[in-house]
Parts: sequence; structure tokens; C-alpha cells
Amino acid sequence: MMEPQTTPNVASIVETAFTWPKGFYSDGLHAGLKAEKPDLGWLFSKVPASAAGVYTTNQFCAAPTALTKETINHDHQLQGIIVNSAIANSCTGPQGKLDALKEQALMAKKLGVSQNLIGVASTGVIGEMLPMDKIKAGIAKLKQTKSAKVTEAVLTTDTHTKTIAVKFEIAGHQCTMAGFCKGSGMIHPKMATMLGFVTTDAKISGACLQDLLSEEVDTTFNQITVDGDNSTNDMVVTMANGLAMADEESLTPDHPDYPVFAQAYHQVLSALAKEIARDGEGATKLVEANVKGAANDLDAQHVAKAIVGSNLVKAALFGQDANWGRIMGAIGATDADLDVNRVDIKLNGINIVLSSHGVEYDEWLLRQKLAEDQIKIDVDLHHGFGKGQAWGCDLTYKYVQINASYRS
Amino acid sequence: MMEPQTTPNVASIVETAFTWPKGFYSDGLHAGLKAEKPDLGWLFSKVPASAAGVYTTNQFCAAPTALTKETINHDHQLQGIIVNSAIANSCTGPQGKLDALKEQALMAKKLGVSQNLIGVASTGVIGEMLPMDKIKAGIAKLKQTKSAKVTEAVLTTDTHTKTIAVKFEIAGHQCTMAGFCKGSGMIHPKMATMLGFVTTDAKISGACLQDLLSEEVDTTFNQITVDGDNSTNDMVVTMANGLAMADEESLTPDHPDYPVFAQAYHQVLSALAKEIARDGEGATKLVEANVKGAANDLDAQHVAKAIVGSNLVKAALFGQDANWGRIMGAIGATDADLDVNRVDIKLNGINIVLSSHGVEYDEWLLRQKLAEDQIKIDVDLHHGFGKGQAWGCDLTYKYVQINASYRS
Repeated sequence: MMEPQTTPNVASIVETAFTWPKGFYSDGLHAGLKAEKPDLGWLFSKVPASAAGVYTTNQFCAAPTALTKETINHDHQLQGIIVNSAIANSCTGPQGKLDALKEQALMAKKLGVSQNLIGVASTGVIGEMLPMDKIKAGIAKLKQTKSAKVTEAVLTTDTHTKTIAVKFEIAGHQCTMAGFCKGSGMIHPKMATMLGFVTTDAKISGACLQDLLSEEVDTTFNQITVDGDNSTNDMVVTMANGLAMADEESLTPDHPDYPVFAQAYHQVLSALAKEIARDGEGATKLVEANVKGAANDLDAQHVAKAIVGSNLVKAALFGQDANWGRIMGAIGATDADLDVNRVDIKLNGINIVLSSHGVEYDEWLLRQKLAEDQIKIDVDLHHGFGKGQAWGCDLTYKYVQINASYRS
Repeated sequence: MMEPQTTPNVASIVETAFTWPKGFYSDGLHAGLKAEKPDLGWLFSKVPASAAGVYTTNQFCAAPTALTKETINHDHQLQGIIVNSAIANSCTGPQGKLDALKEQALMAKKLGVSQNLIGVASTGVIGEMLPMDKIKAGIAKLKQTKSAKVTEAVLTTDTHTKTIAVKFEIAGHQCTMAGFCKGSGMIHPKMATMLGFVTTDAKISGACLQDLLSEEVDTTFNQITVDGDNSTNDMVVTMANGLAMADEESLTPDHPDYPVFAQAYHQVLSALAKEIARDGEGATKLVEANVKGAANDLDAQHVAKAIVGSNLVKAALFGQDANWGRIMGAIGATDADLDVNRVDIKLNGINIVLSSHGVEYDEWLLRQKLAEDQIKIDVDLHHGFGKGQAWGCDLTYKYVQINASYRS
């Protein structure tokens, strides 16, 4: 007999002030890689945690990203991660690999844990070597605190920290999940690196966590775009130490509360992803495309991402221009199954295209709506039941300024 | 026995002042679709010409583009083409189709030829209807001249006309090939429509011409990018009326002078393609990526196009910043076969990356080179014998300004 399907109780997931889950410690400081801001941090669990990661698909995978991937894939266990900004340790050859290994060893030694349980993440300039003396001195000073300073230490051209924490119940135990990320652009020579870290005290096997992350990342981090470029250092890592669930069994897809965990995870990942889009280099607006009526979910996701990825759409939204021809152009340029005469488009709730034709609308009202700092583009393809979302930002003078400024 | 392979004699293809090939006539005028500039033109041959075309892959194919495709595909014959700017006749439904047919009929009637021999091209605002009274009055005024005014009548936000003419010899007969195109951006609501027209008095069958165009377009027009957006109206059409070759047989791939024709055609198409890239909206520089050492030509083309298509690379070049990490990022984001440790990169002749590592270079000299209005990015992947090129432009404040300006 089939189990009745459990619907997650949304009310049971509560967003809370940023706080680390049970047994997680962290710290951050200025090690001298940047002029004065925090540039080095760590994050660890007092016991080994189940771990999962997703990594850049760029063929020039940076040394720290490759090492973390190898470390996690070994047995999906991780106890801590060392993170620096300012220098990406990418395109740095054999020395770069040695430096990443050295960071791993230094943190492992200081915590007294196996080197195989430490991940490494770097973001910043490509092609420069890490100043290992500064890194070493910095690691020596990092403490076992509950500080959130690591969420600052990962930043580059981000205008603010990006954090979220939620609480939820699994089998009667209150669990916490905390996530932070960085992504926006970079110091010279720049790349829009994205790093994301999620910690939780829920109990789940590394394999289950990896499956869930790989699935969730397709509808969250993989659906954001700032400029279509893809960095050598991108990664999202999750650690689950189980400390809130005492002697309970690990969560599996069969567990009645698994949907609660999955939904909390989705909420954390999508909130972080949206924050990266909102804080895209030079952005003044978060742009969300919601596509429905596609032949399948994948088509809907492609169409949504094509819309938020179009430079012409992005520039029009910066100019508060209801330029629907560009949205049609972006949709039509995909290979999604379409009925080309049945597309409807709304901009912040106002119908502008019905059955692939422009409709009359209140110009004044629409301009007011387009002046808001969040733009929703709702598209109905009337061609099936597939749904998908994507997030991006507008294309502004400041984007060009940030990315054209000569290294000084 | 194999024929010895004929190598085209480059010296035999001579660029010349713009002139129409034998038997081609043209005109252009202001019909009232734009405020004052030429907005309507035609182009025709006194005898039916072999014809070939390539068309947008956007699923929302505009009415005139669809009609021209159908007309040419019928038997690869065309005698003339009517062209307007200002209004794209795209996303205009059944009325748009009727209007395109009406334009075709009006031109056919005036020339006294079959409607099935007339193509139609439009570029401009999406979603607006053509003012057919103005079009009709305009067609009535068009004359059989040798004027080049049609090359102005197709323009939108282009800053200048884009034309080229070459002369070459086939079997002792002097032939001419003349091409013009438009592409840059557009009037409100804008799309970066690209239209290209090539005429020649060489003699070649429609089928051969189509094969050659389809092949050549992959390494020319399909290798340019201004902003990655793809219009509903794009097309490149070629007409060959054979009038310079009297009673000679039509060119086929077996003809000893076929390589001369193919090379002239390539020269015309690539010159026009580069002109579009150079005149990209807001551009200050033409950017050319030359990739060699790829596993195959297709990989090389993908890598070249990824480089010139990267917003980060484009903004860096606007800022005269030798930001090679972004070029590596763009290369690595493709699925081309790479040896990730063997990539070399030159910027305007100066080595900046060797074996995937940054090298020391003369900063002052490189900055001078990057101030030039043409940037060559030479990449050697050291992974095979594949070669490819692509052309684009820098990303500037003016691009954002042009595309963000609210419809006034």
C-alpha cells in the first residue's frame, strides 16, 4: 500500500535572525589580503558532518574548488572549511594546488582533525598566488566563536552580506539551517564568483544530502544570472552535523518529515540565490521571470533564464521601458516547445502581451510599476503544465563602470 | 584520377567602390515611416536571379522573413526584394502576413513580374502594423536607378551604411559582387535586427548558391555577436543573375574558378559581418577572436564566439583592461575539448598567457595597444588543428544608454 503523500507544513519553517546551528563554530578576520576588510574565515562543526557540494562546470576549475570537490566526494563527510577572498587561487598551476593543500593542512592541524575533513574555498583575482605567510598567520589567529564574521570575509564587490537562517521541526526536534553566500563581481582581474555555504544540525546522510542539493541547485542557484559568465571558483557546499536530532535516525526520502527538510533547504538556497541576483554588479532591480504553461519544467526554466539573461531585456528594465518585443525575442530564441501565437506576458501584474500580440495598457500605471526595485515578468506559454523561475538584475551604467575600470 | 586541387588566386579578387553588378537596379526614399531619413527601398535584377537565403532561428519569425523564406525555397529564384525600416512587421498576426503579401504584390505589379519572384524584408519596431498607405505610395515612387539609397533605407540605429563590392574573374569574364547590410540596434521597442543582401552577376544555380551561403554564414554572420540577442527578422539573401557570364555554364563546385567565387563570397560576407560587429550599439572597438589549436573547427568557433560574447570581457576591453582571467573563464565555460594547462593568449600581439599562466608583459605598451579601435585576441589551445574566428565589440555606457532609453 502506498503511504499517503506528506505535504510539508509551510508554517513549520520559520525564518529567524542569523544564527549557527548546534555545534557549528566560525570566525573571520583581516589577514592582509585585502586593504582592510575581513578576508579570511573558517567554519566548522564540532563533530564530522555529512556533506554535499556542487561545483563550477568551468573547465578551468580553480585549485581550492577541485580540492573541496575531491574531499567531499571521498565519503561525503566534512568537518570544516577555510575561506578567503581577494585571491582566487585559480590558473595558478601546481603551486596553486600545493597552496590549497597547505591551507587544508593548517586548518586540520589547528582543529586536530583529519585533513580529509577540511574543505577550501577562495574567491578573487585570477592568476595570482596566495600569500601563504599571511594565510598561515591568519589561520593561527582564527578562533572557535559563534561570530558571523566569515559571512563578511567571503565578500568581494558584494554590497552587503547575504545570510539566512530558518528553524523547522523534524520528528519533534527543533533544527536550524543557516546559509550564507557571496557573488556579485570581483576585484581586479575580476570574475563574478559565487560561493554558497549551508549548515544545519539536522541529521541526514551525505548521499541523501548530495541528491537533494544536486536537485535543488537546478531550480535555485543555476537559475540566476548576472552576466552569463561562469567562474572558475563557484561552489555551494552544505554540512549537516545531526546534533539537533540526537539519537533519531537520519532523514531519508521515506521519513515523514523529509519534505519539511527539503522545503527548508529550498527556501534557504532560493533566498541566497535571489540575494546574489539582487546584488548583481551595478544592479538597481531584482528581476524575476515566472514561466508557466511550458511543455515541461525544463523548457520553462530555459525560457525563464533566457529572459533574465537577455542584455536587451535587462537594459530596458533599467530604463523602465515595457519593451515586450525583447522578451518575445528572448523566448523565441530558445528551443523550448512553443505555440508562437499563444504567449501571454505580464510585467508586475499588468498584461502587456496576450496571444503573442501587444495589448493596450495604462502607460502611466505601468511606468510606476517598472520604477519598483523588483520586477516580475510572468509568462504563460499555454502549451502544457511546465513551470520554472529564474532571477537576474538590470543592466546599468554602473555594471559597465565596475567592469571596465582599469586595474589601479 | 583526381583533379589537382585548384587554389584560388587571392590577387584576382579586387575590392572596389560600391557598385551594383550588371543588370541590378535599386532605389530608396523617405516614405514617411521614419521622421525624415530614407525608410523604403527596393533592389531587383532585370532577369530572374538564382537566390539563396538564411533566416533567423528565432521561433517568432516575422511575417516578411517567413514570406521571403517560403518564396526563395520554392525554387531558389528571386527577381527583386522590397525593404523597409522603422517597423519590423513582427508579432503582427494574420494582418502582418497580409501586409507582407501586399508589399510583395505591389512591387511585382510595378515591375510586371510574378509575385513569386519578390522577397520582402522589414526591420524596426516589433508589434506595430505597417502603414500600408505610406508603403503603397512609396512603392509607386520607387524608380529603376543605380542609386545606392537602399543601403541607407535599411538602417535603424546603425551609425553608417555598410557596403562592399568586389570584382573577380570567372572563366575570363569579369564579375562583380556587391553586398550591403544593416545591424546594430533599433528604434523603439528595439531589437538588434540584422539584414544582409548580396548581389552578383556571376552565374550559379540556386541550389549551389544555397549550399555555399549556408556554409559561409556559419563562419561569418553566425560568428558575430553584439549582445547575444537574436531577432525575429534576421535574414541574409543573395541573388546571382548570371549576366556577366553570358553563355558560360553555371558555376558548380567542379568548375576550376569555383574557389574564386567562393572566396569572393566569403570576403563579402565576412566584411559585412565585421562591419556589424564594429558598429554594434554603443561600440568603440571591433573585437576579433582568433582561435587555433582546437580539436576541430567547430570547437574553435565556439570558443571564439564565447570570448567575444562575454559581457565581462567586453566591459574589460572598453576599459582597456588586460583582464585575461575573464578570457580564460569564457573559454572554460564552453564544452570545447581543452587541455586546461596549455592555453596561450595574446592581446593585439602581446603574450599575456602562456600554458594557462599569466606572464609578465610591458603594462605601458599593452595599454597603448588596448587603446586601439580594433582588438585582436589570439588564442592557441594547443590541442589540435581546428581554427575559428568571431567578431564582437566592447560593452559601453552608450550601449546601456541606447537600450535603456524610455520610449519617447
